[in-house]
Amino acid sequence: MDAFLDTCRRTIGAAHVLTAASDTAPYLTDWRRRASGKACEVLKPADTEELAALVRLCNEYKVPMVPQGGNTGLVLGSIPDDSGKAVVLSLTRLNRIRQIDPVNNTMTVEAGCILKNIQHAAGEAGRLFPLSLAAEGSCTIGGNLSTNAGGTAVLRYGNTRELCLGLEVVTAQGEIWNGLRGLRKDNTGYDLRDLYIGAEGTLGLITAAVLKLFPQPKAQLTALAALRTPDDALHLLSLAQSYCVSALTGFELMSGFCLKLVNKHFPAMRLPFAEDHAQYVLLELSDSESEEHAQTMLEHVISVAMQHDYIQDAVVARSMAQSQAIWDFREHIPLAQAAEGKNIKHDVSLPISHIGDFIRTTDALLQQAFPGARMVTFGHLGDGNLHYNVAHPEQEAEQSFLENQAAINRIVHDSVHQHDGSISAEHGIGALKRTEILRYKSAVEMQLMHSIKQALDPLNLMNPGKIL
Amino acid sequence: MDAFLDTCRRTIGAAHVLTAASDTAPYLTDWRRRASGKACEVLKPADTEELAALVRLCNEYKVPMVPQGGNTGLVLGSIPDDSGKAVVLSLTRLNRIRQIDPVNNTMTVEAGCILKNIQHAAGEAGRLFPLSLAAEGSCTIGGNLSTNAGGTAVLRYGNTRELCLGLEVVTAQGEIWNGLRGLRKDNTGYDLRDLYIGAEGTLGLITAAVLKLFPQPKAQLTALAALRTPDDALHLLSLAQSYCVSALTGFELMSGFCLKLVNKHFPAMRLPFAEDHAQYVLLELSDSESEEHAQTMLEHVISVAMQHDYIQDAVVARSMAQSQAIWDFREHIPLAQAAEGKNIKHDVSLPISHIGDFIRTTDALLQQAFPGARMVTFGHLGDGNLHYNVAHPEQEAEQSFLENQAAINRIVHDSVHQHDGSISAEHGIGALKRTEILRYKSAVEMQLMHSIKQALDPLNLMNPGKIL
Repeated sequence: MDAFLDTCRRTIGAAHVLTAASDTAPYLTDWRRRASGKACEVLKPADTEELAALVRLCNEYKVPMVPQGGNTGLVLGSIPDDSGKAVVLSLTRLNRIRQIDPVNNTMTVEAGCILKNIQHAAGEAGRLFPLSLAAEGSCTIGGNLSTNAGGTAVLRYGNTRELCLGLEVVTAQGEIWNGLRGLRKDNTGYDLRDLYIGAEGTLGLITAAVLKLFPQPKAQLTALAALRTPDDALHLLSLAQSYCVSALTGFELMSGFCLKLVNKHFPAMRLPFAEDHAQYVLLELSDSESEEHAQTMLEHVISVAMQHDYIQDAVVARSMAQSQAIWDFREHIPLAQAAEGKNIKHDVSLPISHIGDFIRTTDALLQQAFPGARMVTFGHLGDGNLHYNVAHPEQEAEQSFLENQAAINRIVHDSVHQHDGSISAEHGIGALKRTEILRYKSAVEMQLMHSIKQALDPLNLMNPGKIL
Repeated sequence: MDAFLDTCRRTIGAAHVLTAASDTAPYLTDWRRRASGKACEVLKPADTEELAALVRLCNEYKVPMVPQGGNTGLVLGSIPDDSGKAVVLSLTRLNRIRQIDPVNNTMTVEAGCILKNIQHAAGEAGRLFPLSLAAEGSCTIGGNLSTNAGGTAVLRYGNTRELCLGLEVVTAQGEIWNGLRGLRKDNTGYDLRDLYIGAEGTLGLITAAVLKLFPQPKAQLTALAALRTPDDALHLLSLAQSYCVSALTGFELMSGFCLKLVNKHFPAMRLPFAEDHAQYVLLELSDSESEEHAQTMLEHVISVAMQHDYIQDAVVARSMAQSQAIWDFREHIPLAQAAEGKNIKHDVSLPISHIGDFIRTTDALLQQAFPGARMVTFGHLGDGNLHYNVAHPEQEAEQSFLENQAAINRIVHDSVHQHDGSISAEHGIGALKRTEILRYKSAVEMQLMHSIKQALDPLNLMNPGKIL
């Protein structure tokens, strides 16, 4: 390995080849601190050409490569295994915004750009880059693309896949594919772009991308509605979509139990309703005209929904500050949940029409198997994406309950599968769910995926052990 | 081949195995009647299982397969070559609408469904399926997906790719992949869906799809603006997008020469302006509130654009009938063009910001090489998609001018490439542009495409000679 190491140092400079344990440690442990791997070194190239040279070198020496951006992934996709044979390729130095084209509504960014910086640069140019998620202050766009990240704006703008027009990629063999197209229409061959997006670095390395930009909304306003059932929430969703169409940018379901937990752990936060309700929905409208127009629209939707008896009570925010207060309830659910103790989390999605039945059926199955288990159910209902989390019964110790994780995952994921859903809505597969998908994907689909992997990375050097 | 033919007949019934020249003829000539191929037979399976059985049979006998839907393609992608070795697999009997789910805003359709019937079925369920194009009365959704068709609503709803959530595919080996997911979020592996979409049947056969549905707009209204230059049209586009956001569903550029041709060949059609102008733009707004709201919005955009001197004159339709009259100008351009004589057509796309420069530069290059050539330039400016067509000089005979086709294509496509554009915006590659892309695609990209083809169709039996 000495010759390999020497060549790495000559290629990118010794300062960017990390070998000391204290230097490499932050790159080897995952975001949630559930696992640590080993690497022979961490390499930090300055640009696409240096990265391509390193990949060619890794091919020559048959060294497995683990690409990494902000290392905020949730499925153990960006850390190496514990063999110590791989290198980590950190892309954080590829952090230039290469171009912003407000007329074409595009920007070209390098993989290591932090999401927050991209949002900010778009804003400076009078445009919106809508991808937004909890880790935005440290995650990188390369990771967002490689995991096809979701976030809070999918209902209106789609996943990261829908926000990307073109890519630059270093192939598994260390060649550079320049597919940095800023085109809305281009039918000239296979869709390589979407193959690399969501592939978690197992087919090649995304080094830059052309992203879509949008006009900035003039106003954003929310409403909070109280309802009886998830099915009523679906009625409300259809209604809101028919009136607001794509102005509806948020539609979040929260069970009464979620908001009870918020109130328990943050007593200052009180819901604006006299009574308790079984379900709540947060609606967000992004308006291209004015705050007044947004308010009129929201009030109209709420009033029609009341006439149809879909909702029992509601408040419409009268200002951006009130809107933020409503979002605060939603954002405090994960915090309240954590204060109540660890729980068993699931990132699932379903056809929207199946959500009511999924919740009813799965709640019943879990109650039968684990009496007293408490479901903390909330999520982006408009996308069919539920955070279906399971907390320990009040009378049972947290730790002993957590030992049921595998059994609970099985019940939840089997139910998701029976309801035509996905066991990973937005987090990906990584090393964490690699064996789990074998239970739910057909042999035909797995074979197709293996054929593609074999075709593009025949030496299995790109992020081995992830997805496949 | 007798054993092969007998087994085909046993598999799908003799009535669905066409061998007589009079029966097979319609399947062997392309839509524009530019080319004819030969086939040993035309096979018309009833469903996915029969199709899969035929594909396995073709594998056994090493018979190349040419899939075909409505045979309305424009790049010779759906007819066989003249070797006579292939079979045509006609998918028109796979024409069931399997399911409509208005709550999930999805419908599941088979590949042979005619686009118009899908639009109609969505409408009956109170929803919009927005894909719309000239051939919609006879093209099938399988062909739309395989060519990633564009059409008139891309600005708001995207290409066919963006309108599809899941697929059912018969692989090149005759296995059935059920990827009929109706999910907005699903990150569980490689994006096989987008690999088959736009692959023109060269990797496998799309047999069914889950399509996205949308709320129906309450009103659609148009305006016609007169402008000086394509650059002013770009200013107007930015302005209209900032006010109308996704309510802006159409933005069509038409040169003054285009509308002069309309007036020449359809003298009853007169523009609503006192003077002639260099450029015109048709704007279409789809409103979720009312016709009045759409009108107010359009008038506001027009008035601000006038203040900025982006436009010189404009009319806003006051009714759906007036809107249709404005669309009529746009829709008569191809007819007027045909009445004026054959011309050399190009289906190109560009970054929107490069369109002004592309038109100026390319017009000048063509005038230099072919003095008097007349450019019929119009298209979906909002998508960067131009129909850049070249007609013979008035003083030159049409036929002699058409002999310059290769030289003119070269000038136009080279200029497109220099402006970072695509030489096939929405029609695909087929057999027609197969060698043309070699000039513009990098060796790396071609190699990646060949690797994928080799991985999924190692015997090269799926629509051979198309794309690659």
